[in-house]
Amino acid sequence: MKKYAIGVDLGGTYTKLALVDKNGRVHCRAKLPTTAYKTKEALLTAIVAEIGAILKENRLSFRDLAGVGIGVPGLVAFEEGLVYSLTNVPGWKNVRLKKILETRLRKIPVLVDNDVNLMTLGESRFGAGRGAKNLVCITLGTGVGGGIIIDGNLYRGTSSAAGEVGHMPLKEEGLRCNCGSFGCLERYVGNRYIVDEIKDKIRSGRPTKIRELVRGNLSLVTPEIISKAAKKKDALAIECWRRVGKRIGVTLSGVINLLNPEKIIIGGGMADAGEVLFKAIRDTVNERALPVSKGAVKIVKAKLGNDAGLAGAAALFMPK
Amino acid sequence: MKKYAIGVDLGGTYTKLALVDKNGRVHCRAKLPTTAYKTKEALLTAIVAEIGAILKENRLSFRDLAGVGIGVPGLVAFEEGLVYSLTNVPGWKNVRLKKILETRLRKIPVLVDNDVNLMTLGESRFGAGRGAKNLVCITLGTGVGGGIIIDGNLYRGTSSAAGEVGHMPLKEEGLRCNCGSFGCLERYVGNRYIVDEIKDKIRSGRPTKIRELVRGNLSLVTPEIISKAAKKKDALAIECWRRVGKRIGVTLSGVINLLNPEKIIIGGGMADAGEVLFKAIRDTVNERALPVSKGAVKIVKAKLGNDAGLAGAAALFMPK
Repeated sequence: MKKYAIGVDLGGTYTKLALVDKNGRVHCRAKLPTTAYKTKEALLTAIVAEIGAILKENRLSFRDLAGVGIGVPGLVAFEEGLVYSLTNVPGWKNVRLKKILETRLRKIPVLVDNDVNLMTLGESRFGAGRGAKNLVCITLGTGVGGGIIIDGNLYRGTSSAAGEVGHMPLKEEGLRCNCGSFGCLERYVGNRYIVDEIKDKIRSGRPTKIRELVRGNLSLVTPEIISKAAKKKDALAIECWRRVGKRIGVTLSGVINLLNPEKIIIGGGMADAGEVLFKAIRDTVNERALPVSKGAVKIVKAKLGNDAGLAGAAALFMPK
Repeated sequence: MKKYAIGVDLGGTYTKLALVDKNGRVHCRAKLPTTAYKTKEALLTAIVAEIGAILKENRLSFRDLAGVGIGVPGLVAFEEGLVYSLTNVPGWKNVRLKKILETRLRKIPVLVDNDVNLMTLGESRFGAGRGAKNLVCITLGTGVGGGIIIDGNLYRGTSSAAGEVGHMPLKEEGLRCNCGSFGCLERYVGNRYIVDEIKDKIRSGRPTKIRELVRGNLSLVTPEIISKAAKKKDALAIECWRRVGKRIGVTLSGVINLLNPEKIIIGGGMADAGEVLFKAIRDTVNERALPVSKGAVKIVKAKLGNDAGLAGAAALFMPK
């Protein structure tokens, strides 16, 4: 078995690359500014060049690589390695990324998957999910993403679209979501909505340290600022994370009752809100999920941070 | 490979048994009145005797059987064949059913599973789910149960408790459910709640044919009566099934977004409400689920009726 693979995490801002060994250790990082490349072709050329540079730096050749795994922020047909479209990366419509890169990379195997799937795989194999057979990973940020591991393997569903925890209904009749539906979890706990909700409360006169932290400029409020205020025991900020945690906990109770997983892993920037958020999630699951299933599940924070996607991309080539 | 297995469906009213061949065909049915047996032991003795009688009638011996599969209405630890407890069957607490029956059945392999799981397996292998790799089956009745097939196999989860679609949240803040949680789907579409809801509307003066159908005695209203009225174009009854279908559709949209299944199979007595119910479910999924996932899924009625559980119990011994 080959010892190394290359992981690529193609994001809206940066495209990250790394050499990853079979234990999931990330050895040699590189970073390309995605938006600086005017065309898809220019970005792909830079990725290919960067892979060459990483190999050279580590005195490896293409023959030493098990493969190149690429995570992208969008929907992918995994088997064909076809990218349907990408969120926040213009110009990517129905791109046969696997085929294009295999041609440019001297027929090294290339696999393309959704970025949250690969983060889930990375955490499952090398991070917070080690040893768990069945788990669900969610990422909290601008959107709410998710990935599912069944029996140690990524579960992608019928058309590589599984895992959309953010678009499970929190409310039967709720606010309209970006996706066209109503009451989706993401519509209540996506970054923007949390910020909007707390700004409304501040405007209505609720006293809070957040006002000082942004020097009165409410357009500077972010989830990080709310977390900062919560750590200073600001009541409004703590209330905010409790509300968010409860909402996430309600939806996760449904996921837990449906899938009876061993672990729920929570990642993404918002997970840094820390204990106030996690406690609200755990308390809600404890109140709502069925006894046997809630007894079987551990709700934990993701461990690998930004490396999860890179490690997961490489893990596509590494047997369990 | 052996050609036959015995399927047993242990229910609150009847315990059904059958000889099932490797194509899922049910050959020889028998039925025991569960409640007529005063003790668990008496019922088990009757089951063992009935299996002997079925074999004799078909000129088979124990050696011709691949095994005996038993579905029970409750939570089971599948690997150990341990029944934790049964709904509506008193006296069953932590029963090592697999071990007890294997001893009494001359060491023929016995497997014990939840009844909705086995119905799901039966439909998947021989009924409405044939050919689908990933599917979810739900049963609509007193409770709302569910089972999951992943990659052609039953997915049981970490503690054999997966599939509880009925206890996924329809509403963040909803009515208290039997399970202790709030706003569960079952609390809104379980038989009893549908009947209570429509009785309230009738009492408040809504005109409806249901009143005639039960000759003014509202305690006789059942889902079957509501279906009868709906088939006679009764507006209140049609509205009832549309509301129920919408609620089921909202929760199923979440299941579809999470699992991206190829099929959703709907069974249980209430599925007989027919097109008015199915149309509301499909319309809601069409309005709410994500495009790729809703495009991949077919929502169909269960095909095997009461035989599904028997065929599924036997299918535990039949390779895919």
